[in-house]
This record gives sequence, C-alpha cells and structure tokens, in this order.
Amino acid sequence: MSPLRLYVLVFIGILSFSSNAAEWQALPAEAPAPADNPTTPEKVELGQMLFLDPRFSSTGTVSCNSCHNVMLGGEDNRAVSMGVHAQTGGRSAPTVWNSAFSSSQFWDGRAASLEEQAKGPVTNPIEMGMGELDEAMNRLRDIPGYKPYFEKAFGTDNPMTVENAAKAVAAYERTLITPNSPYDRYVKGDEKALSEQQVRGMNSFASVGCTSCHSGAAFSGPAMSPGTAFFMKFPTFTDNDYANKYKLTEDTGRFTVTKNDADKHMWKVPTVRNAAITAPYFHNGSVGTLDEAVRVMAKVQLNKDLTDGQVADIVAFLSALTGEFPEQSMPHLPPTLGRTIIK
Amino acid sequence: MSPLRLYVLVFIGILSFSSNAAEWQALPAEAPAPADNPTTPEKVELGQMLFLDPRFSSTGTVSCNSCHNVMLGGEDNRAVSMGVHAQTGGRSAPTVWNSAFSSSQFWDGRAASLEEQAKGPVTNPIEMGMGELDEAMNRLRDIPGYKPYFEKAFGTDNPMTVENAAKAVAAYERTLITPNSPYDRYVKGDEKALSEQQVRGMNSFASVGCTSCHSGAAFSGPAMSPGTAFFMKFPTFTDNDYANKYKLTEDTGRFTVTKNDADKHMWKVPTVRNAAITAPYFHNGSVGTLDEAVRVMAKVQLNKDLTDGQVADIVAFLSALTGEFPEQSMPHLPPTLGRTIIK
Repeated sequence: MSPLRLYVLVFIGILSFSSNAAEWQALPAEAPAPADNPTTPEKVELGQMLFLDPRFSSTGTVSCNSCHNVMLGGEDNRAVSMGVHAQTGGRSAPTVWNSAFSSSQFWDGRAASLEEQAKGPVTNPIEMGMGELDEAMNRLRDIPGYKPYFEKAFGTDNPMTVENAAKAVAAYERTLITPNSPYDRYVKGDEKALSEQQVRGMNSFASVGCTSCHSGAAFSGPAMSPGTAFFMKFPTFTDNDYANKYKLTEDTGRFTVTKNDADKHMWKVPTVRNAAITAPYFHNGSVGTLDEAVRVMAKVQLNKDLTDGQVADIVAFLSALTGEFPEQSMPHLPPTLGRTIIK
Repeated sequence: MSPLRLYVLVFIGILSFSSNAAEWQALPAEAPAPADNPTTPEKVELGQMLFLDPRFSSTGTVSCNSCHNVMLGGEDNRAVSMGVHAQTGGRSAPTVWNSAFSSSQFWDGRAASLEEQAKGPVTNPIEMGMGELDEAMNRLRDIPGYKPYFEKAFGTDNPMTVENAAKAVAAYERTLITPNSPYDRYVKGDEKALSEQQVRGMNSFASVGCTSCHSGAAFSGPAMSPGTAFFMKFPTFTDNDYANKYKLTEDTGRFTVTKNDADKHMWKVPTVRNAAITAPYFHNGSVGTLDEAVRVMAKVQLNKDLTDGQVADIVAFLSALTGEFPEQSMPHLPPTLGRTIIK
C-alpha cells in the first residue's frame, strides 16, 4: 500500500471516530488473531516460555520479559531499556499489555504484526544481541525439551522454525490483555465503578481532544484495515518550553524507517491503558510523572494549557484504565543437560 | 565460635558420615526453618515478590531471579553472573534450589543463614548495586502496594524493615526444594526409579569417595550444629593439569573472608542436586560440562583417574538428582502510580 493511501485511511479513521467521540469502548475479552495464527493453548504455553527465556540473548541475561515485564506494567519503568552488555537505546519500551490491539508495533510502526515484532529485539545489537535469528534458533534447537512443545503447537513436520517461534510469542502476547478496569466496568453499566473525579476526567479526556488519537478499545487509535496503521505527528506544537525540555523532536519517528519526509515525527499512537503503572512516559521516556505527561500532551498536541484541576481529573481517569492482569503460572524452562549454551 | 572449634566439628561430621556412607537420604518434603523465622504462606508470598522484583537494583534491571533463575536450575547457566551495568565477578551463581539445606551460604560461607545471605547481593556493587540497604528499603517503601503484604506477614508494627524483607526472601527460598527425583524415589523403595547405569553410578559415587563431602540429603555435607558450617579444601591435589587449566587455585575461597591461612582454598561444599541442569561448574564456572566436572573432581579431590565408563555412570547418577520443581504462580508486583522509582 502506498503511504498516500495509508494516510487517507488514517484520516478516514479519524473522521469516523470524531463523529463518535462518545462511543466509549470496553476492552474485548479476547484479542483478535490473524487467520494464519489462531491463538491456541499450546502456542500460548510455548510462547510464554520463549518470552521468559533469557537464553536467546547473546549474554543469556535478557529475555523479552526483561524489558516488557509481565509482572509489572508490561515494561520496565525505565526511561530507556537496558539490553545486553548494559547498552541503552533512545526509545522507551512500550508496554506489552494490550499490544495486541495496536495497529502496528514498535514506536515507529515498523512491524505490522506481533509476529513480525517478535523477531526484532532478538537480533538488535543493543537489545538481545544475537547476530542472526538462526543463531537464536540454533540455541533453541540445542534445548531438547523445547521440541515437544513446538510439536504440540505446530505439528511434527519441522516445527522449530523462526516463523513458528514468532507465532508462539505473538499468540502468548495476545493473551496479555487487561479487561475489567474500573473504566470498562463503567462503560458496561456499573456507574459506581468510577469516582466523580474520574468521570470528570473522562469527560475532559474527550472534550480537551485526547480521544482524537487515543480512541478505540485500547485507546491506541481506531480499528484499522489489515496492513494499515494509525500514526500521528508528535509533537504537533513546538512553540513551547516542553519540546526542548523533554527533547521531543530529536527522534524523527517513522521517518527513521521510511526516510519519507511526510513521516517526520510521525509515531504509532500508544495505548494509554495501564498508563498509571508504566512511567516514565513518551517515546524517549523523558517525562517522569503522569501528571506532567498529561500537561505536556495537552500543550504539544492540542496547544492547550490545562488547569491543575483538569490535569488531576484526567490523571484520575487514566488511573481507572488499569485493568485486571490474567493469572499466569511460572513455567519451568527446559534445561540443557550437563552443558550450557551460553558462551 | 573459634575457627578451631568449627573445624573440629567439621571433622567430627566427616567421620560420623564416613561410617554411614551407605545411608542414602531422600530430600525432606520441607526445609528446616530457624526458630525466629518460621515459614508462613504470607512470608513466602511476599518473599517471592521481592525475589522477582528488579526494582531493588540500582538500574532496575537485576532481581535475585536474574542470577538465581527459578524458571531454570536456580542459576543462570553462565560461568559468572552479570549484575548491574553488565559487570561480572569471579564466582558462579550457586543454585537457589535446595540452598535451604546448606550449612552456610555464598561459596565462601560468609553468610550463616539464608536471611543473612539475602542482604548481600542488594548492595554488592557488581550485583544489584544499591549503595546501602536503606536505599533499597526506601524504594520498597515507595511502592505502596507492598505495605499490606508486609503487614500480613509481619504484623502492623513497623513491618517494612530490612530484617523482615530478608526473612521473607529466606522463607520463600525454603520452599525452593526439589523432592521426588528418581534418586529420592529409589531411596524410598522404588527400585525401578533408577536405571542400571544410574545405580552403578550411585555406587561409584560412594566408592570413589564423592560422598565424603557430598553427603546428606542435599549432597552438600552432613547436618551441622547451628552456627557451624561444612567447608572443604578445593583443589586438594594440584599436581595435575586441571588446576592450571581451569584456574582452580586463583581464588582462595574462605580465606578472602577470614584472612586466616587455614582457610586458604576452603569452600562451602555445594549441593550436587540438579547438577545436570546447572552447568557450567565450580566456583569460577570454568568447567563447561558435567562429565568433565566429574573427571576433574575425582582428580583434584581424590587423586583418581576415572575411566570413561565410571564418568558416564556417575553423570547418569547425578542426572537422577534432578527433582520435581514446585508449581509457582507468577505474581503481579505492586506498581508505582504515575511515577517511577528507577533513576
């Protein structure tokens, strides 16, 4: 699809949403899965193990969970994550919770699906640092106990492939959703689920204009046609102190992927579900607190100066977007017998 | 207690065990707990959370579990662990599984109890890197959701102390035991639990002399009186290629703690339970495979050259010491709301 057509779709999406700004959506009980990777318990079980296993990083110390900690808010509460050899990059780890509802993955949307995303960090030299995906797969094939899990999930005909490993991780991630937040219960009819302040904040969230981007069930934009993604410019208004103070324009966002001028400072719209537990904020993790993040967003995206009361109300509303975390058992990862695969 | 008295006790322990070399012991279903820290479900629940929480390291990236991974063999399959800022030390992380049965903690036995051990890595500059324990406690007190867990475990009178945090972690670690290995089932009367080769290996393990140190239910030495610990010299025989090849004498062991010449190259006797899944081996992680570890141990401790058959038999026996891992749920760690405590 051409970038032009993509943006046309984006704007149609925005328009159609704007006319339904009051259509507050609860989080579905299940995340949608692509036709070629239906979610099965066997894939989810395997995917969780792969997600938690640090042995697929060069040092044996970094798993998906190291930066996208499912025992926390699906990230690491750091401005930027720390990969192998304590290296750090320029972008903050997005939460894995509810990432299944995103129209694209990575801050710059360079992966169209969770399956595609799952392959990225493994070979990123500052994340998991494996030279090539095959190197990681060789480690995986060196752990005999993984084979039966792949066979159960994908059949016995050469199941241990990069594609299948990515499918398993993606299937697991599609179970990482947080329904039944106070907001969800409110939207479903439980009027006592939100406090008065939270309802005020909810109304402000819409009337100030936050919902023009943070829409949909995960507040990460409207549902998009397959293959299209929802991007917005950030920051839009730079004639203020915040853009410099928080270095908001240093990273050009999607432009770094496409090298298309129209993509400069375009970003995937992140979910604000569980925002209260995923500080610090923004693509570079430069803003430490949620109230400051709300203040900055209103200014740099909508050119509005919120009152302290509005900020407090919206923060209260955002805190009502912390959902219920599914119970998970802790897997025992298949060992290597009498030897190590970590160099 | 004077070092002399301690060693007298050690040697009494060895002598009393030698007379009962055939007294193979199964792992008890529960680990003993000290009188001032009885194991309770509330402490175990809290201790597991603290054990898994990376926010008590300076970078927010290293938890107890990072190096003592309970999803693996209770360690990290690395020669030496990687702490904050990717620093490494000179010693390999011992397994946390069945550490409750050790007469002391750390390779050099510098902690008499799991409670005392738990405080060490937090402030170690190359492990979790917190300047002081109080700094870690301040982070903990900054996470409001931990308070009810401390109150449930320790009462409401100022429960959030370093001592109580250490008690909770130790209580959790006392649940990290792996009973019902094939060896345990065999010792309890199930003659089919071990293969013929494993039985041969078991007999060799005793007749070669391994049991003179690796005795007791956890194969980490005999039960000791409280306050005493079981140390042995390693390597004992250095007139061979192994000592140099694997740098076995560079680290002086317990001497680094006591500065007492008699403690040079004295080490806590590590458990060999789950040895098959905790490669690489020895205090410095210098030996990559279990069969080589067996060969080296026989030579440098007993001055014996094992045949390949003996090595294979003993490895088969050691593999029968991999036990059952208790099912654990994955906790959701209390968040910090709208802010981060990681600098």
